[in-house]
Amino acid sequence: MTPLILSKIGEIVSKKNLLTDPVHKEAYSYDGTPLLSKLPEAVVFPENKEQIAQIMELANNENFAVVPRGSGTGLSGGSIPVDNSIVLVMTKWDRIIEVDEENLTAWVEPGVITETFQTRVEKMGLFYPPDPGSMKICTIGGNVAENAGGLRGLKYGVTKNYVMGLEAILPSGEFLKTGGKNFKDVAGYNLRDVMIGSEGTLGIFTKILLKLIPKPQKSITMTAYFDTMVDSGKAVSDIIAAHVVPAMMEFLDHTTINCIEDYTKIGLPRNSEAILIIELDGMGAEVDEDATKVVAALKKNRSTYVKVASNEAEALTLKAARRTAFSALARVKPTTILEDATVPRSELPVMIEKVQNAAKMFDVTIGNFGHAGDGNLHPTCLTDERDEKGIQNAHRAFDYIFNEAIKLGGTITGEHGTGLAKKDFLESSVGSVGVDFMQKIKKSLDENNVLNPGKILTMKPKCEGALPKNREQIHDFTHTHNH
Amino acid sequence: MTPLILSKIGEIVSKKNLLTDPVHKEAYSYDGTPLLSKLPEAVVFPENKEQIAQIMELANNENFAVVPRGSGTGLSGGSIPVDNSIVLVMTKWDRIIEVDEENLTAWVEPGVITETFQTRVEKMGLFYPPDPGSMKICTIGGNVAENAGGLRGLKYGVTKNYVMGLEAILPSGEFLKTGGKNFKDVAGYNLRDVMIGSEGTLGIFTKILLKLIPKPQKSITMTAYFDTMVDSGKAVSDIIAAHVVPAMMEFLDHTTINCIEDYTKIGLPRNSEAILIIELDGMGAEVDEDATKVVAALKKNRSTYVKVASNEAEALTLKAARRTAFSALARVKPTTILEDATVPRSELPVMIEKVQNAAKMFDVTIGNFGHAGDGNLHPTCLTDERDEKGIQNAHRAFDYIFNEAIKLGGTITGEHGTGLAKKDFLESSVGSVGVDFMQKIKKSLDENNVLNPGKILTMKPKCEGALPKNREQIHDFTHTHNH
Repeated sequence: MTPLILSKIGEIVSKKNLLTDPVHKEAYSYDGTPLLSKLPEAVVFPENKEQIAQIMELANNENFAVVPRGSGTGLSGGSIPVDNSIVLVMTKWDRIIEVDEENLTAWVEPGVITETFQTRVEKMGLFYPPDPGSMKICTIGGNVAENAGGLRGLKYGVTKNYVMGLEAILPSGEFLKTGGKNFKDVAGYNLRDVMIGSEGTLGIFTKILLKLIPKPQKSITMTAYFDTMVDSGKAVSDIIAAHVVPAMMEFLDHTTINCIEDYTKIGLPRNSEAILIIELDGMGAEVDEDATKVVAALKKNRSTYVKVASNEAEALTLKAARRTAFSALARVKPTTILEDATVPRSELPVMIEKVQNAAKMFDVTIGNFGHAGDGNLHPTCLTDERDEKGIQNAHRAFDYIFNEAIKLGGTITGEHGTGLAKKDFLESSVGSVGVDFMQKIKKSLDENNVLNPGKILTMKPKCEGALPKNREQIHDFTHTHNH
Repeated sequence: MTPLILSKIGEIVSKKNLLTDPVHKEAYSYDGTPLLSKLPEAVVFPENKEQIAQIMELANNENFAVVPRGSGTGLSGGSIPVDNSIVLVMTKWDRIIEVDEENLTAWVEPGVITETFQTRVEKMGLFYPPDPGSMKICTIGGNVAENAGGLRGLKYGVTKNYVMGLEAILPSGEFLKTGGKNFKDVAGYNLRDVMIGSEGTLGIFTKILLKLIPKPQKSITMTAYFDTMVDSGKAVSDIIAAHVVPAMMEFLDHTTINCIEDYTKIGLPRNSEAILIIELDGMGAEVDEDATKVVAALKKNRSTYVKVASNEAEALTLKAARRTAFSALARVKPTTILEDATVPRSELPVMIEKVQNAAKMFDVTIGNFGHAGDGNLHPTCLTDERDEKGIQNAHRAFDYIFNEAIKLGGTITGEHGTGLAKKDFLESSVGSVGVDFMQKIKKSLDENNVLNPGKILTMKPKCEGALPKNREQIHDFTHTHNH
């Protein structure tokens, strides 16, 4: 990128919002995805939507790439810089603009931290359910861009189910408003839901209208231990068959249990093959009715121990065990590859077995945990990026896992997105006609391929090419998936 | 259309599935939308997806238009034939292919009747909530194409919220599969939700995967009478503020009450200004708790009479009164124009007033009813298409209503779609950048503009031009909206 272009960007956002020093470029060269990083040409903090529009116009005229990001907690490389790119950081856009108690909606800026927003509305007796693992630091804008999931997905749905409207700058620099406070709206094509989950490739969100619901008045949290994985799977099926829909029904395998116990020392059963952590919530008496049904299903399936939290503090401890899983696993080895293969709920027991097979076949350590109720697993490989063979084996294990998920009617990604990390699997997941349709949408909106190019889809090769962090020692992650 | 092209179509679908006689062409020349009709060149019943693909290929090669339809109950002209078009009728595709009790999903063909499907799954203890007014005769395929709403929208959402996957023939003849049985899936752009509500302009559905939920175990239905519209509106606000989410919260105005009473003689209060009909449902004791809160809100807002149905038969009678509204109004005059202006819930009282203003200002009879909980009104003009002045006044009244809805942050259509009838309002509802985005999607998928051209969007003029039923006596409906 020429100094002239950089100075033009500086004119748009003012010099203080344009960082080109090596330290800042390094700080914005990666996100939560292991093995991927690349230095941007500059880091830019726009202050208003007019500046974003001008930057997109400049990008089209001067042929550079713009990579938008929030906190950078993504796990598929969606906010990794590409060749000849600037990173557009939206974290300073952190105002909660309005909470409308009559319509149960809220306008927020994209940089609002998810948990901050949740805490704010819960004080008003309202509830914003989406709770991705990174909710303490991730932004709503990133959640919308990735259509983030979370633990409460089974009962409450994912981010998409809580986005009523969006304002965004399109790749051309045009300003789009879509959706609004209407519960029903079928005027024209559903543009809002195309933008949600588009991973920063179709637009840069400037304002987001969220849906709120009344906060559940009551909740019951419990945990159950199992000697076999199969029993825990059957318990999940029986709970669903009893027409109970838990707010949370989380599964931890033996490896994960022991890593969490090493880390937290909260007394998890080191010999158990599986734990379920279940939260039921609602407005009143139905929560107790459901709890009775759930305990019966757990005992029927030979749970060796069922504990119902007797107060809020106990409930928080049980849930914290699950929320700690990723951090606990990440302590064990230098490199943690967390994936999100997802299958129809009925296939979960089969998929758990496939993950165990993968660990054995390719001689890698995989902890497995996830959202049992909605078939969304998080097989997590504990490895070391300096160990070339270990990384190759990890990739082979995930190749196997993704292919098995697809065979079971599953998907390569339940909540992390495609980004760079899973591009090579997209066609096997959505088909060539699906990929072609997506490319048509991208091409028609972003003629010059300047907005987050090379993510999700391979268009023209000109702006692509994030490389592994340690280029000398390991293969390019985006290519090892090819075989 | 030349005999050669017709014979090629006959070769594809076999002669028995190609109808070209005047009686059949007339029968498929209109849908549920008043004032619009046009004769197609032929009526075609495809038997499998290969035939549909071949027809689309032929349409691209020979430059004719294909207009897909189900039962033709649409209210925005989405399935009205256009110039040089064939109608592709999907009503014979009426198999329920699979109900998967483990995953709570069902695969259906697009021609399955909505109520038939509901009855079938309810016998299994399951529930498919979307309940458009025409549910006794409309098809699931049509519901998906229009993203149909219904009475249960507030609590349970609309059709879109229950579509997990789709198979469709694209305008090019290619076969698209999108979505599946996974509760979470973020692989690439969300194509499924672009197809839903695309009104037959982006693809022809061949198979639809629906989401089911457990059937509520308990319900309480009640009705409340009010002397003023304002009181009924405040009661609705208070119910929502008490964090109760009714399965149904329907509003009928004075005109509608009297038309229903004329028709059904079930003892509705002819002097009341407004009635609310409310259904609460759920799994257990919370339904009674909610009912107590609702009755308190009704009485606080001076309801003159609150009746809680004491048994299922009474509940059905109350709900039938609401479901009869359209038929009851339609009896009064030869032509009934039913609209679906929708506003944020908080604006409902204002919007009701605007509808009353419109009736006075333009000297037309408008009955008003609708879904009070989600801001979706059905102002219904009772008129006569042979009365040119009356029809002009009706259009002027609706122009006013739509514009006022948009000013209040509302939309031109909550559940009927844009089709032909509301094309001229689309830009004012979604903005020029939104329309441009939609056109780009349509153009990129349907280069030759052969699949249901001229609906929602005006592309090239070549295949457009549905005309009013009675061409001599009245203006073209699609044009009178322009001023």
